[in-house]
Amino acid sequence: MAKKSPDEVHPVKAFGWAASDPSGHLSPFSFSRRATGEEDVRFKVLYCGICHSDLHCIKNEWGFSTYPLLPGYICFTTYTPTRKSIYLIMVARERYIVRFPENMPLDAGAPLLCAGITVYSPMKYYGLSEPGMHIAVVGLGGLGHVAVKFAKAFGARVTVVSTSPKKEEEALKRLGADSFLVSTNMDQLKKEQFTLDGIIDTVSAVHPLLPLLGLLKANGKLILVGAPEKPLELPAFSVIMGRKTVAGSNIGGMKETQEMIDFAAKHNITADIEIIKADYLNTAMERLAKGDVRYRFVIDIANSVADIYRETTQRK
Amino acid sequence: MAKKSPDEVHPVKAFGWAASDPSGHLSPFSFSRRATGEEDVRFKVLYCGICHSDLHCIKNEWGFSTYPLLPGYICFTTYTPTRKSIYLIMVARERYIVRFPENMPLDAGAPLLCAGITVYSPMKYYGLSEPGMHIAVVGLGGLGHVAVKFAKAFGARVTVVSTSPKKEEEALKRLGADSFLVSTNMDQLKKEQFTLDGIIDTVSAVHPLLPLLGLLKANGKLILVGAPEKPLELPAFSVIMGRKTVAGSNIGGMKETQEMIDFAAKHNITADIEIIKADYLNTAMERLAKGDVRYRFVIDIANSVADIYRETTQRK
Repeated sequence: MAKKSPDEVHPVKAFGWAASDPSGHLSPFSFSRRATGEEDVRFKVLYCGICHSDLHCIKNEWGFSTYPLLPGYICFTTYTPTRKSIYLIMVARERYIVRFPENMPLDAGAPLLCAGITVYSPMKYYGLSEPGMHIAVVGLGGLGHVAVKFAKAFGARVTVVSTSPKKEEEALKRLGADSFLVSTNMDQLKKEQFTLDGIIDTVSAVHPLLPLLGLLKANGKLILVGAPEKPLELPAFSVIMGRKTVAGSNIGGMKETQEMIDFAAKHNITADIEIIKADYLNTAMERLAKGDVRYRFVIDIANSVADIYRETTQRK
Repeated sequence: MAKKSPDEVHPVKAFGWAASDPSGHLSPFSFSRRATGEEDVRFKVLYCGICHSDLHCIKNEWGFSTYPLLPGYICFTTYTPTRKSIYLIMVARERYIVRFPENMPLDAGAPLLCAGITVYSPMKYYGLSEPGMHIAVVGLGGLGHVAVKFAKAFGARVTVVSTSPKKEEEALKRLGADSFLVSTNMDQLKKEQFTLDGIIDTVSAVHPLLPLLGLLKANGKLILVGAPEKPLELPAFSVIMGRKTVAGSNIGGMKETQEMIDFAAKHNITADIEIIKADYLNTAMERLAKGDVRYRFVIDIANSVADIYRETTQRK
């Protein structure tokens, strides 16, 4: 059998935004994709969420990026549901497609395929989704705000832990959390000592684990879903006494992602989003780096790149 | 009701060895104990194991010791089975007494009430006791050598990880481990990368977790049972990728301790011990600090302090 040429393997013209170096600046980028195969689904991308992993990747903050890098594709290809993509037309194996229930909006639902599954999966896997649990969510950003919503929907008492006292009203009044702790306020932390069944820690900067572990009951679990660049300090005593766990979790599988989106639809959970056009992408990335977004940017792909969209679809 | 005087609360003369300051030097020490109550059992102490926690405590290395400190009593009173004691005559609530099966020797069985339950409990709790698991034991000391024995009895493939290449023959030939890795030999570690279901980490000095986490399969668990004085470094990525766990465990409850000793008796598991007399206690502590014991000191209480023993029993 003759070896296929690159054009035969990837015959279809495609288009996206790529970073070409660790500055992370994103520019329009042409490439090619495989033809739609028998087990593939070809679909239009209408919306695309942006997450902090995209930022880490385009700037090579985790040290394993290769350029040109198209965020949302290079990161976790295997694991990322296909809706999270900044291409216009995509193909994907049918088994990697998630069906959105009728009442789930496409724009505010899009980030759930990243942030939603990232917090839903560990709550299920580590036994934190039983009603009546006391769960803390550390960090009130893209991941944290949906973690609060899922934990409440599971029937938990939810405490938000944040470095910023300003977020208290938002946490309690708008997101429905039951209590709020400033992570540097030892008096506040002491009051909730030994009360938690679990913690979903979404913080992607280096931070102390000891005060958080002190909030856990015996057998409590601290789950890391944010990935700081440098190691965290773990005092062995803080997990030995009370048989506590520090564990990690990374998105989730396709079956669980479908389960998550169905659960979210049933409980009217969506992400709080700011919709942007593609030409705002680099500004959005700068704002994301500063935590200046409530809580997820979503690119309105179809309406912001209509010309390119038309051109690409006409070729196929 | 009149308040009881100290003599009424603790009317019985008792005797032990105590440290009076963080030098950790142990000297004979007289004190008093409560009378034997209705729910108590009064028993002779024939043997007493010494563990690394005793050493940490008498030297105040964990920072919470109070003096005079009688090791084996002050540390974890609530949790330590009563046989682990250097007193001659003890009383304890009946529910804190462990029954030794007929075939379990008192001397080589004594350390199991500390080292045995410390490694048995997490293997059971964290699901590492199923047959066919691949388990690593890190550190081949008092805890490690019994961890190998229990893991083998559970039907695991057992890998010993040690800083000392000299321990290979001991691990493989005498203790029956299946493989041996030098913890600083990256080539060796790489060969067993992603192969382990769990790790029992017994090391009580600061050491890197990253190479150990790299040995774990997805969903693998690293259990800390040694307690270094300073925090360990935990790279968040190393637990997020593969959904791995770092957890702790601290001895075990009475029901599980009885289960452990019955299991050990059934599988002919004992600790490897060096029997000493009480007058060797301080030398033993010095040797323990250097790791110079295979693998546990056990004090032959009755035969080394016969005079004091007689005197104490005659008074009651």
